[in-house]
Amino acid sequence: MGIIKEDAKKIIHSSIQRVLSDSAVKRALEGKSFSGKVVVIAIGKAAWNMANAAAEILGDDIEKGIVLTKYHHSQGPIKNFTVLEASHPLPDEKTITGTEVIIEAVSDLSPEDTVIFLVSGGGSALFEKPAGNLGLKDLLEVTDQLLKCGADIVEMNTIRKHLSAVKGGKFAALCAPAQVYTIALSDILGDRPDSIASGPTCPDLSTCKDAFAIVEKYGLSLTEEMKQQLFVETPKEVLNNTMLITGSVNELCIAAASEAKALGYEPLILSTFVDCEAKEAGRFLAAIGKTIQKDGFPLKAPCAIICGGETVVRITGKGKGGRNQELALSAAASITGMDNIVIGAVGSDGTDGPTDAAGALVDGYTKETLDEAGISIVDILAENDSNRALAITDALVMTGPTGTNVNDLYFLLCK
Amino acid sequence: MGIIKEDAKKIIHSSIQRVLSDSAVKRALEGKSFSGKVVVIAIGKAAWNMANAAAEILGDDIEKGIVLTKYHHSQGPIKNFTVLEASHPLPDEKTITGTEVIIEAVSDLSPEDTVIFLVSGGGSALFEKPAGNLGLKDLLEVTDQLLKCGADIVEMNTIRKHLSAVKGGKFAALCAPAQVYTIALSDILGDRPDSIASGPTCPDLSTCKDAFAIVEKYGLSLTEEMKQQLFVETPKEVLNNTMLITGSVNELCIAAASEAKALGYEPLILSTFVDCEAKEAGRFLAAIGKTIQKDGFPLKAPCAIICGGETVVRITGKGKGGRNQELALSAAASITGMDNIVIGAVGSDGTDGPTDAAGALVDGYTKETLDEAGISIVDILAENDSNRALAITDALVMTGPTGTNVNDLYFLLCK
Repeated sequence: MGIIKEDAKKIIHSSIQRVLSDSAVKRALEGKSFSGKVVVIAIGKAAWNMANAAAEILGDDIEKGIVLTKYHHSQGPIKNFTVLEASHPLPDEKTITGTEVIIEAVSDLSPEDTVIFLVSGGGSALFEKPAGNLGLKDLLEVTDQLLKCGADIVEMNTIRKHLSAVKGGKFAALCAPAQVYTIALSDILGDRPDSIASGPTCPDLSTCKDAFAIVEKYGLSLTEEMKQQLFVETPKEVLNNTMLITGSVNELCIAAASEAKALGYEPLILSTFVDCEAKEAGRFLAAIGKTIQKDGFPLKAPCAIICGGETVVRITGKGKGGRNQELALSAAASITGMDNIVIGAVGSDGTDGPTDAAGALVDGYTKETLDEAGISIVDILAENDSNRALAITDALVMTGPTGTNVNDLYFLLCK
Repeated sequence: MGIIKEDAKKIIHSSIQRVLSDSAVKRALEGKSFSGKVVVIAIGKAAWNMANAAAEILGDDIEKGIVLTKYHHSQGPIKNFTVLEASHPLPDEKTITGTEVIIEAVSDLSPEDTVIFLVSGGGSALFEKPAGNLGLKDLLEVTDQLLKCGADIVEMNTIRKHLSAVKGGKFAALCAPAQVYTIALSDILGDRPDSIASGPTCPDLSTCKDAFAIVEKYGLSLTEEMKQQLFVETPKEVLNNTMLITGSVNELCIAAASEAKALGYEPLILSTFVDCEAKEAGRFLAAIGKTIQKDGFPLKAPCAIICGGETVVRITGKGKGGRNQELALSAAASITGMDNIVIGAVGSDGTDGPTDAAGALVDGYTKETLDEAGISIVDILAENDSNRALAITDALVMTGPTGTNVNDLYFLLCK
């Protein structure tokens, strides 16, 4: 069992290495040269790491650089960059002033100039300026209404893109006539470019008509100025942007599969869209493990079943844990007593929920250890207290914050 | 879209045909001959169909036959068989008297005689006689305590086997010196022989010590006579039984895969142990469908992802539905807007929950139709009212009762 767990740890390490924000940016920029002025704009939770990597690669070619990231997410000065921080997940005044600094930096550029736009998760909240005469208060007010009425994320973004001066392709327009080269780390399942950070440099698929339908559907209460902004169509075509998604859950899974194969496990990537309840995803993976061991479907052991995604947790208790830890703990209950099987779930950002673990690795003995300690997995899950139980069984995976976020890796190894 | 749904219906039809109780029994008995007297004993919800098939194949070779099935589950007389009915899911007096008739029929046999024992789901409740001086009341009383204290199914069966005169291998002992040929339709994930109908003809893995540990764990209140019976060990070795599992969810899935292949879809059997929440299993299948269409993992279309199992439903509302219908409806929400995809979930017994549907088939347009009718899938699932919504969208699969039960088939077709 020791060896299979060691293999699992190698798979986690290799796959996260592949999607680290700095290596992703370096891969994207290596060997590239730009003719005119180069302005680097980095937004999102990984902005500092991405900007720092760009500074290393491009060095003095950078005319100017600005980082706008979450409070406490920058790690010091970067050459000639301005490093700014603001609030997440809800924007504050620093968001608006930071965004204005960025807009200022990309105005007055020429057609031969390039804006290198480095985007990561959290960018939707961290990069924002209300359209027209709207203010931060208006945006927060609408967001609050949307959250309370139960609008889904597509609906929320449709409204927000229309009320923003930078989202939904509008930032690319502000950069014109310069060219934009967008390098994105995707934390959006399916990697839809207009969804990553609300697509500041991408054509927007949502229309004014869609926005008004949502207003009507939920009976949103809007000011006259808000309504006026909803009438302004977002860009449906963006000609000055080149987009490269360089880190995504897809790459995370492919890297995991490649490491698994190198270690002697036949890999199968099952899905990169897993979005169901964490503990049920754990049971589903366990059910596949049982079938592998009983009948050799979908593969004969040694094999690795690999998934990526972002599961959800239904909060019913007051414990400490995260979606990856819940997935693993739930899987542990299902594979109890089985040999030669390990199930792992880790967040590529290295932090799972409000804990210092990235996730967990469980095997057929995890439940037994908990039973001996008098701990019931059913009770622990009802309390959302997975962290404590997994700590006791030495099942936590600790990577520290990785500075990237392309969602989670879920996998099963059978030997 | 029409064609892919037709293909899905063919897959459902072929796979259920394969596990129909009568064809399963015929496959098992065809070409077999028995030297001495042949006594056919059939228990469980499919007992009548299985016995009828045996009567057709073996004809006058059968010395005596007894069917013990659920009320309203027999379909008339069978040759020289005695057809009895009793209560399910809780036994009643008819269970005990029926079981006594069966015990009488297998006593006084010789070593060259054969008891053909046909077992199907429900057999655990339908075939029962309390051990020693215990009565039906005692059994019901203990069952009630076990249900209330939250004991799991393995724990319940450990107690029940020790308090029964026929479970846990004891019926095989009653048939001795005759040989027993057990033909089982399995409704137990993993097909553990000692779990199907509580294994009347199989060595029992649970011990007296296990039973007392459970009594202590839950503080069960037992009479002196019950305690005495718990001290009597169940058979750990059964030498006069040959066991054949002829219908199982595994066969259901293999048949579905074979039909899918014949229709031009590359099949992948993913799991035959799916036991998570129905609606989360639906989301998981949908997540695989998205990955197939976006990146060609785990297979390129046209392909079929096939699972079997028995999902669970958390009751939060007062509507009408079943686990297969919930799985399909939840999947429909996730695949909305997608072309060339169908997700199906059907119970092999032809009845899903308290409805007359076997399950449902949904596609990328199911949700749109419901939206137009003003029906929210989230609300419907919260009300457990899947049947009504699926009826509106013409998504129900109706097979009528099939007379078999080897759990459910869940699948996804991508074209």
